Amino acid sequence: MSDTTPAAYDDLLDRVGRIANVSHASDLLSWDQQVMMPDEGTPARSRQLSTLSAVEHDLLVADELGRLLDELETADLTPEQRAVVREVRREQERAVRVPTDLVERISAASSEALTAWREAREADDFGTFAPHLRELLDLKQRYAEHVDPDRDPYAVLFEEYEPCLPLDHAEDVLTTLREAVVPLVDDIRGADADLATDTFAGTFDADRQEALVRDALDDLGYPWERGRLDAAPHPFSTGTTYDARITTRYDETDPIGALLSTVHEFGHATYTLGLPDEAHGTPLGEARDLSIHESQSRLWENHVGRSRAFWEGFLPRVVEAFPAVGDPSVREAYEAVNAVDPSNLIRVEADELTYHLHIVLRFEIERDLIRGDLDVTEVPAVWNEKMESYLGVRPETDAEGCLQDIHWSHGSFGYFPTYSLGSVIAAQLFDAAEAEVEGLDDAIRAGEFDPLHDWLTDRIHRHGKRFETNELVSRATGDDVSADAFVDYAREKYGSLYGL
Amino acid sequence: MSDTTPAAYDDLLDRVGRIANVSHASDLLSWDQQVMMPDEGTPARSRQLSTLSAVEHDLLVADELGRLLDELETADLTPEQRAVVREVRREQERAVRVPTDLVERISAASSEALTAWREAREADDFGTFAPHLRELLDLKQRYAEHVDPDRDPYAVLFEEYEPCLPLDHAEDVLTTLREAVVPLVDDIRGADADLATDTFAGTFDADRQEALVRDALDDLGYPWERGRLDAAPHPFSTGTTYDARITTRYDETDPIGALLSTVHEFGHATYTLGLPDEAHGTPLGEARDLSIHESQSRLWENHVGRSRAFWEGFLPRVVEAFPAVGDPSVREAYEAVNAVDPSNLIRVEADELTYHLHIVLRFEIERDLIRGDLDVTEVPAVWNEKMESYLGVRPETDAEGCLQDIHWSHGSFGYFPTYSLGSVIAAQLFDAAEAEVEGLDDAIRAGEFDPLHDWLTDRIHRHGKRFETNELVSRATGDDVSADAFVDYAREKYGSLYGL
Repeated sequence: MSDTTPAAYDDLLDRVGRIANVSHASDLLSWDQQVMMPDEGTPARSRQLSTLSAVEHDLLVADELGRLLDELETADLTPEQRAVVREVRREQERAVRVPTDLVERISAASSEALTAWREAREADDFGTFAPHLRELLDLKQRYAEHVDPDRDPYAVLFEEYEPCLPLDHAEDVLTTLREAVVPLVDDIRGADADLATDTFAGTFDADRQEALVRDALDDLGYPWERGRLDAAPHPFSTGTTYDARITTRYDETDPIGALLSTVHEFGHATYTLGLPDEAHGTPLGEARDLSIHESQSRLWENHVGRSRAFWEGFLPRVVEAFPAVGDPSVREAYEAVNAVDPSNLIRVEADELTYHLHIVLRFEIERDLIRGDLDVTEVPAVWNEKMESYLGVRPETDAEGCLQDIHWSHGSFGYFPTYSLGSVIAAQLFDAAEAEVEGLDDAIRAGEFDPLHDWLTDRIHRHGKRFETNELVSRATGDDVSADAFVDYAREKYGSLYGL
Repeated sequence: MSDTTPAAYDDLLDRVGRIANVSHASDLLSWDQQVMMPDEGTPARSRQLSTLSAVEHDLLVADELGRLLDELETADLTPEQRAVVREVRREQERAVRVPTDLVERISAASSEALTAWREAREADDFGTFAPHLRELLDLKQRYAEHVDPDRDPYAVLFEEYEPCLPLDHAEDVLTTLREAVVPLVDDIRGADADLATDTFAGTFDADRQEALVRDALDDLGYPWERGRLDAAPHPFSTGTTYDARITTRYDETDPIGALLSTVHEFGHATYTLGLPDEAHGTPLGEARDLSIHESQSRLWENHVGRSRAFWEGFLPRVVEAFPAVGDPSVREAYEAVNAVDPSNLIRVEADELTYHLHIVLRFEIERDLIRGDLDVTEVPAVWNEKMESYLGVRPETDAEGCLQDIHWSHGSFGYFPTYSLGSVIAAQLFDAAEAEVEGLDDAIRAGEFDPLHDWLTDRIHRHGKRFETNELVSRATGDDVSADAFVDYAREKYGSLYGL
């Protein structure tokens, strides 16, 4: 800190650092719960997480923190310091406005809803989940009203996940996506192409998959001294710039699934690792929210891991690891990892293109539910109609339809759009990287990922929360957040793949 | 809770539960640091642990907690509730009396001392560690003075680890031990016995050692659904009744080391697992301090794992795992795991008998240092003299002498005695179990450990901190804490082994 830094700013950083430390401790406890904890450890772990969450909340709503923020909002600060104050104030304000007992009620209701959702999905019976969904919607509407009674409640909830990209802007992106992707998928469905989707068909030992995945992470430059790879039922990435861990999942019939899922999580981890050490524990050392995080994972998964250049370099490694695949061409590998399947009903299994329609559908339904424009009982019918209209398929069961995702039973309304936003930002960033990093394609082909990694660190990672979402993207790419780059990329890629 | 439970008692449990949850979260973070964390994760982890420690302290010294304790000390409570109030008061009082900045200074000084100790041990130069030791002694003397200026500072510090067994009582035990063990070791040194110490000599693959250790844990009844086994440089056990984890260490030249170390940690874990689920998060669901904890590990390690009965049952498993050991007799195995080696200078490698003299020596030195009866500069000379007098050997270097243990660089003065206390209590408990559990020896021989386990759970585990240390032991065994049972056991065991 310079000599002119107000004492209140140092106090603020001290308090903010404690909040961050508790939050990172919770993250580690959650990682352990999903990766290491024995089966019966849940009762104690739940209590630990619940106490840490309460401690974090108490630290955030402390009067003294509010007083420091008041003082600093009129103090003479650097732009970085002002960004810190802005970010802390945003979180603090929300925490102060929402009563603790409402947060606890949401937590309790979602805990019950989670069990009900599992049972409903098992029994393929939306009716038993409906009352839980209704209660959560009601509680989250109240939550939004506490935060700001004068604004669209869905916009308020969206800000929990994407606090500084206005919903209007996000909605434009999603509409553009839908209007471009629906006809493109329609064209693909009508195309007379026969892609080599069985290039990697077979059964593949999980240990060899793990060895291959570790090789890929070595190539990508994952720093093992600051990370680790483990298996988890639902792959995720978590941690800090000092310790950013990846998990993956091995399916014996789908070796490429583990590989690309790991590359995806690597993208998340590399963002976390690119945050500046010296700002650890402050907003300048924290990732800019979910869509930017997802842009990093999608960029590595789709623009690197599904690129022709990557497969030109990496295919021999796959063949070496799994001789049973024979001797496929790069074209066959490229087709296998990029084939579009509009008939797939399940979001998490969807290809890169149709994925967006799964998201748009969920976004439209949850928005209307929160705004009160749709009743819970109508969800299965609306879901199935939209599936038919966007993708040309109709789920036969709710288990394969509106009960497939966990998010709503967590009370997460406003989360889904961040997936598609991440994807379109990934396309924008990759375009800009291609324009600025000389020989990027050749580097990827040669297994040299440092140039791309350095560019991303410079443009995105090292800034933490210094800039708001749109400013961060437009500084990196020259453009506002938009679906255009993705749409161009998709038209070219799938046009070429499907001879459109 | 019954209808007559004062509301203040429920409030107390709520607050105490939060403190326990934070403490258990810290335990998990430490486990991860030692077992899973990548090398460069330390800066973030240290901050997380430091914040959680501060949070725990703040919760403990909160005015409201003190007020609740005041109210409950005159309330109409059950004996269990009174025990809870007694235990919380003890911790709260100490936390309130010691200023936070002194705690932080001790933490900072011990962090520096730890580095200095590592370097001093490496360079075999006590002189560079001495100023750090002096500073820590000074700070801990001040700490003791804050807790109680009118009492022996060493007694006060001892209570950090063993809060409810008076130091006088502990000192009697240690004196009895020294007076009995020194001549017994002397007799052994002079005995004309040739024990089969090379029964398990050779090189043994770590993976096979792990498989054997897991088999042993299966036999012992370790519940994997509430635990796990991992490798760590310094084996330890940690967790809660829902999730009690073990670590061990594989030395390719010493397969029995990993086995017995694991049985030792199993003893700790089984205590944690035997604490009542329903009292989790209260003192009635927490272990009664270090000596009782150590009594459980020593009982399993020494009275089970080094017993002839155990080896009658388990030797075939070892032979099967490591065919290279040939076909040793039970007597040879028994001799190998029970041989006494007075010439061993290193405490952590010491046998079951001479171990106590290593402890008595450290106890006498640290007590005199804290009381101001010994100067830091005198430590190496006094150490070496006592080694010669108790064990008949003299270290040639400080690295093998007074620099061998980490404890003092942690600022831990008063910890060492709990190891020997645990061992004597183990002997008392095993005597009582043998008298009360019919066919105990046969059960151990047959690999049936449930009867012993059930007896220990009934007598020790399930009570948590309900009784103070001596009362707990005397309810379980009929006797006060004493070295007599151990001395009798040792005279008989080593008399027979060495033909004395």
